[in-house]
Amino acid sequence: MEQDRDSRRNRRRRGGADGDAGTLERSRARGGFQQLPWRNLANPYSPIEVVSADGLEAIHQTSLEILEEIGMDFLHPEALEILKAAGAEVTPGSERVRFDRGLIETAVGKAPSDFKLHARNPKHDLTFGGNNIAFCEVASAPNVSDISGGRRVGNFKDYCDLLRLGQQLNIIHLFGGYPVEPVDLPPATRHLDAVAAFVTLTDKAFHGYSLGRQRIVDAIEIARIGRGISHDRLLREPSIFTVVNTSSPLRLDGPMIEGLIEMAKLNQPAAITPFTLSGAMAPATIAGALAQQNAEALAAIAFVQLVNPGAPVLYGGFTSNVDMKSGAPAFGTPEYSRAALAGGQLARRYGLPYRSSNVNAANVVDAQAAYESQMSIWAAVMGHGNMMMHGAGWMEGGLTASFEKVILDAEMLQGMAEFLQPIEVNADSLAMEAVREVGPGGHYFGAQHTLARYENAFYSPILSDWRNFQSWEEAGALTATERAHQIYKQLLTEYEPPALDAAIADELEAFIAKRKEEGGAKAD
Amino acid sequence: MEQDRDSRRNRRRRGGADGDAGTLERSRARGGFQQLPWRNLANPYSPIEVVSADGLEAIHQTSLEILEEIGMDFLHPEALEILKAAGAEVTPGSERVRFDRGLIETAVGKAPSDFKLHARNPKHDLTFGGNNIAFCEVASAPNVSDISGGRRVGNFKDYCDLLRLGQQLNIIHLFGGYPVEPVDLPPATRHLDAVAAFVTLTDKAFHGYSLGRQRIVDAIEIARIGRGISHDRLLREPSIFTVVNTSSPLRLDGPMIEGLIEMAKLNQPAAITPFTLSGAMAPATIAGALAQQNAEALAAIAFVQLVNPGAPVLYGGFTSNVDMKSGAPAFGTPEYSRAALAGGQLARRYGLPYRSSNVNAANVVDAQAAYESQMSIWAAVMGHGNMMMHGAGWMEGGLTASFEKVILDAEMLQGMAEFLQPIEVNADSLAMEAVREVGPGGHYFGAQHTLARYENAFYSPILSDWRNFQSWEEAGALTATERAHQIYKQLLTEYEPPALDAAIADELEAFIAKRKEEGGAKAD
Repeated sequence: MEQDRDSRRNRRRRGGADGDAGTLERSRARGGFQQLPWRNLANPYSPIEVVSADGLEAIHQTSLEILEEIGMDFLHPEALEILKAAGAEVTPGSERVRFDRGLIETAVGKAPSDFKLHARNPKHDLTFGGNNIAFCEVASAPNVSDISGGRRVGNFKDYCDLLRLGQQLNIIHLFGGYPVEPVDLPPATRHLDAVAAFVTLTDKAFHGYSLGRQRIVDAIEIARIGRGISHDRLLREPSIFTVVNTSSPLRLDGPMIEGLIEMAKLNQPAAITPFTLSGAMAPATIAGALAQQNAEALAAIAFVQLVNPGAPVLYGGFTSNVDMKSGAPAFGTPEYSRAALAGGQLARRYGLPYRSSNVNAANVVDAQAAYESQMSIWAAVMGHGNMMMHGAGWMEGGLTASFEKVILDAEMLQGMAEFLQPIEVNADSLAMEAVREVGPGGHYFGAQHTLARYENAFYSPILSDWRNFQSWEEAGALTATERAHQIYKQLLTEYEPPALDAAIADELEAFIAKRKEEGGAKAD
Repeated sequence: MEQDRDSRRNRRRRGGADGDAGTLERSRARGGFQQLPWRNLANPYSPIEVVSADGLEAIHQTSLEILEEIGMDFLHPEALEILKAAGAEVTPGSERVRFDRGLIETAVGKAPSDFKLHARNPKHDLTFGGNNIAFCEVASAPNVSDISGGRRVGNFKDYCDLLRLGQQLNIIHLFGGYPVEPVDLPPATRHLDAVAAFVTLTDKAFHGYSLGRQRIVDAIEIARIGRGISHDRLLREPSIFTVVNTSSPLRLDGPMIEGLIEMAKLNQPAAITPFTLSGAMAPATIAGALAQQNAEALAAIAFVQLVNPGAPVLYGGFTSNVDMKSGAPAFGTPEYSRAALAGGQLARRYGLPYRSSNVNAANVVDAQAAYESQMSIWAAVMGHGNMMMHGAGWMEGGLTASFEKVILDAEMLQGMAEFLQPIEVNADSLAMEAVREVGPGGHYFGAQHTLARYENAFYSPILSDWRNFQSWEEAGALTATERAHQIYKQLLTEYEPPALDAAIADELEAFIAKRKEEGGAKAD
């Protein structure tokens, strides 16, 4: 692979940039945006466990009971065939499938405990499983917003800017879907332009939507072309991932099933995520919602393993609750945090990588957006989430992608990334020599130990303003959200597209042109 | 004690209110402010441990080495006498004290692992130690701020309003000091009016400042009078607490020492909190700052135990870091969070109750204020902090108390209080019957299981706005901070002083008058 990279480096480049990590060094050199370098993160701390071993077992048993007695609807004949052949009980003339618990446990047991997701730039490859954790940008918002432009319907210009922002920010490890729906692109070919933009504007790993067979097949092909690998190698190297939401309660829709089948066949990973909103699509108790979440996740994961044993999956948890008075979905609530941590316990019970999220229900990038997000970030991280969907930019329970929120989240995620660096304890860091030098009543500003650490002693924020009140006021008294606006604008100004091999660019262009000629995903 | 309470209930009341928890019920009845009821909180989850057993031992050993080899300055002759008599090595003609590690370990071992702090209203008594956790209001800010009045120097009117707010909010368990310094009161008698206000405006536990002997003696007497108990009973029942900051590095000031001595003699608790700002008053490494924090805390705690073996103390952690470029203190940073969690590990190592904080360095109640606070709240809670100082209202690294921040924090703390309620897992909550009733593709809005839980299924926020964007916009598009402004105003309007026994009120008035006549704390 080293050779691949070198040879790529020697070919023609678009935009004159030199790969990924160069961004930071270049910025520093010219006094531009300062941020943490790209890092693959792992959580060295024990996860928070909110459910006892007995409680976890009861949730597990209830979910198996649900699948055995009540069953789940699989809205696609091909799925019914596969499930029937595997020994599941399909009610004749219906889409209802009941599962023996042995069938579920055996099938789920075939899923790998971890897998690598390859990016176009190998430096951005990611491992899911164990205590690794990676952050996605916001995904699937219908609207987009920033302070100067207001809230507007999703469009391709903002879409591309959100991709550029995600490429610029090292703390964003991958793209979890379209950050915003580019509604101005024609539906049948939208996925072609949108997925191609991941390859041309970024070099990080990305997601394809399971909205029917054609769209996911196209997305996989674009990922393959982008990496410049053969079809055989694609089978060995997951290069794109998909999120599949069950249509809770207890239903899996046809287009999602088609996506799951294609992805599984080609050994590409799927994050199975039941949308179990407690009080609406799931029981109005956290335990009940978790049991249903678990039933749906296990059934869909078992299905993937029946299609292709060993295909990579993530166990997804998204359980939250509605406001009982209005029916409005709520996120980043105490119930959400506990459910997210319990979701991690369930995923670990099955030895599966875990997908969680960074969520909130605020309508404006304010203190609520921050504290609800923190409630979900802490739960995702301390629940040993491996993939944090919607890591940066999600607002309004997913209805809006906000440019300022991307920056706010990037700051919170950088803080978390630093939090995950263990405290160094050794003779040097214990600093006995410095304490001797300074002594009682002195100060450490000029101590040798301090001067030696001047540059990198502590986390340096991208958004927090630590000036005193007077200096802050004289500088314009900007809120964090107003500063985030300036920062995202600066990042877009400094953006340069990552290097792309000319042959790959040409192949991609030709593929998109051909598929557009064919009408895109009209058939779906 | 039951009898005491009953007899008090039957006497004349000021303001006509009926005790504490009545506030909520009354509010509900007339459609007023909705909040969680008063609750003593405990953290049922295992603490997050950020330092290995070996690392913890190395920090412990280094702190003993510091005290043995470098020593600490105790700036008061009485302290030097006590320490010398106990076997510590006092350098003649100086205030430098060196401690044998055996002396430290033996003395610290005498401190109780938990204690009860009594409030004027027994329903507001608190236990510190184990996995209990209680939240204080903001303390010791020189400035005060709200949206309509702007930022202003502390004064008695705002002081009283912050006390009223703290009384109104059930999630605020006690007062950790003057929420803001009432600078318009004369310095010599300020403490008399300020501490008396805790008794007249609130019925929760409170704090007295260790600023010389006279002030703390007066504060203790006011607490005794407020509870209507004898001096003997005061000795058995801690009724006021104090925070003592070491003057880092490695120094304890005279006025603080006087306070410590008086409090210890009367068996009243002190939270010993080194102010170890890494890079300024402590080494520029977290491990080094923790070792110094631990040395200072252990020395002062040992001193308290030498004054009165068994006197209650809390181990305080406040280690944060400065911005190395400007020297500005930073709070709620990743370093802060890790240090706060490690502080909990140290406190547990010695079997001592742990004091942590809710901190941030923001200049305005915005997203930064929220996320920095959350970084410290999660660390305090998951570090098994028993007392969270500055729980509600702290801004600008402690330079301002904000009315809106009190509400923002109250919301975040309520969320945390709910997060600490374990997920109920039983046949009823697992909701198999509801899943049967609803089945695949249905919804739970009208299910029997949902209707039975309509009122109290989920946490109901005081600040979060979960309406959709259009409804929120039509309602004025208020940010969380603007809503917090309205909420605090409403709470002050609804405020009624808690019942106060007439005899106690009279005794208190007479005491304040007498002490004012005597000149207050002029001698200090």
